[in-house]
Amino acid sequence: MKLYYADTLMPRLACAVATLVRAPVEFVRVDLFRGEQKTPRFLALNPNGKVPVLEDGDLRLWEADAIACHLARRFQPALWPEAQTHELVRWLSWNARHFTQAGSILYFEHVIKGQYLKQAPSERAVERGLQEFRAGAQVLAAHLANRRFVLGEELTLADLALATALPWTEAAQLPLDEWPVLRHWYAAIESLEGWRHPYPAKPLAFADLPPQA
Amino acid sequence: MKLYYADTLMPRLACAVATLVRAPVEFVRVDLFRGEQKTPRFLALNPNGKVPVLEDGDLRLWEADAIACHLARRFQPALWPEAQTHELVRWLSWNARHFTQAGSILYFEHVIKGQYLKQAPSERAVERGLQEFRAGAQVLAAHLANRRFVLGEELTLADLALATALPWTEAAQLPLDEWPVLRHWYAAIESLEGWRHPYPAKPLAFADLPPQA
Repeated sequence: MKLYYADTLMPRLACAVATLVRAPVEFVRVDLFRGEQKTPRFLALNPNGKVPVLEDGDLRLWEADAIACHLARRFQPALWPEAQTHELVRWLSWNARHFTQAGSILYFEHVIKGQYLKQAPSERAVERGLQEFRAGAQVLAAHLANRRFVLGEELTLADLALATALPWTEAAQLPLDEWPVLRHWYAAIESLEGWRHPYPAKPLAFADLPPQA
Repeated sequence: MKLYYADTLMPRLACAVATLVRAPVEFVRVDLFRGEQKTPRFLALNPNGKVPVLEDGDLRLWEADAIACHLARRFQPALWPEAQTHELVRWLSWNARHFTQAGSILYFEHVIKGQYLKQAPSERAVERGLQEFRAGAQVLAAHLANRRFVLGEELTLADLALATALPWTEAAQLPLDEWPVLRHWYAAIESLEGWRHPYPAKPLAFADLPPQA
């Protein structure tokens, strides 16, 4: 299995889950700034031209949530409790449409534009991102008021997906500190070694892969 | 079971799936223009203040994809083939972030603003929506070139979720006709009576419900 990734927002979730569940994947780093994700060779893996992609035999699986789901079900099924599939889908959907969506606006403005591209963030986008992040954080904090994790007492993929943007809390200026219950919940995720260090020290480089047979 | 809905984009998917799988739900129509979704009583069902919501015993399930998943697994499990959960998650995630996301931009501009609010659509938003819709349609059309449905020969929730915006193809000016393979695929979904007529003739009205015990 090969996991094509970059150290950006959505791929980080797939990498962290792969590392946490000790999936036997080879990590292949794709250089987004050189545009490797738009090369014909990469587009054959994912026609969307995006990372992450998991190559597993004939399967080319894209979308970080799907890769995380696949690896969790295969290597640590407790992270995807089948009987609660509708709850997992609830939180993945809400996360894609609202919570991490809001986080990704602030990540894009402050990290991609601010740090990498040395551009000024758009005030309007930051305002919208903050408003949506706060609306989501409020809902999640109320839900976690009487639960240790999102689905109850055990960590699941719902928690990890909802935490996708949180490693960039400072860099993306996410106002997480306004909700102590979210800080407390995220501290439990951050205590996991594989979450903090999701990438291998020496990944393969996409440019160095041998041509496909 | 009660399904709280409005005849707008995401709730339509939940209603259509409830109707298709013949789930024994009572439909409760929420009047969004009167702001019923922001009343304390509705917020107790869904703190996000959005439709749809499924009330099933103690469960208050929100997010249309999750309601559709729950009803499919319970009443017509072939729509959610458990062994292909990662494929279902792939398409639901891609749909939430890209395909129906793009459709919903065009739906908002042309249907909500254009038809209901009698406002001019934003040219910039329409352009962005069209560009993202076409990028997604291209990927989906290539995928469907040698398959009847998204996961293979059988209809699943992946197809229905991807079709969320397509009942508004004309009204939202979705350029679906540019991909005959998508027209062909969607015709099979449109041939389903429950997809074409997802709402009951006489739903309950949210305002008329008796106060909660």
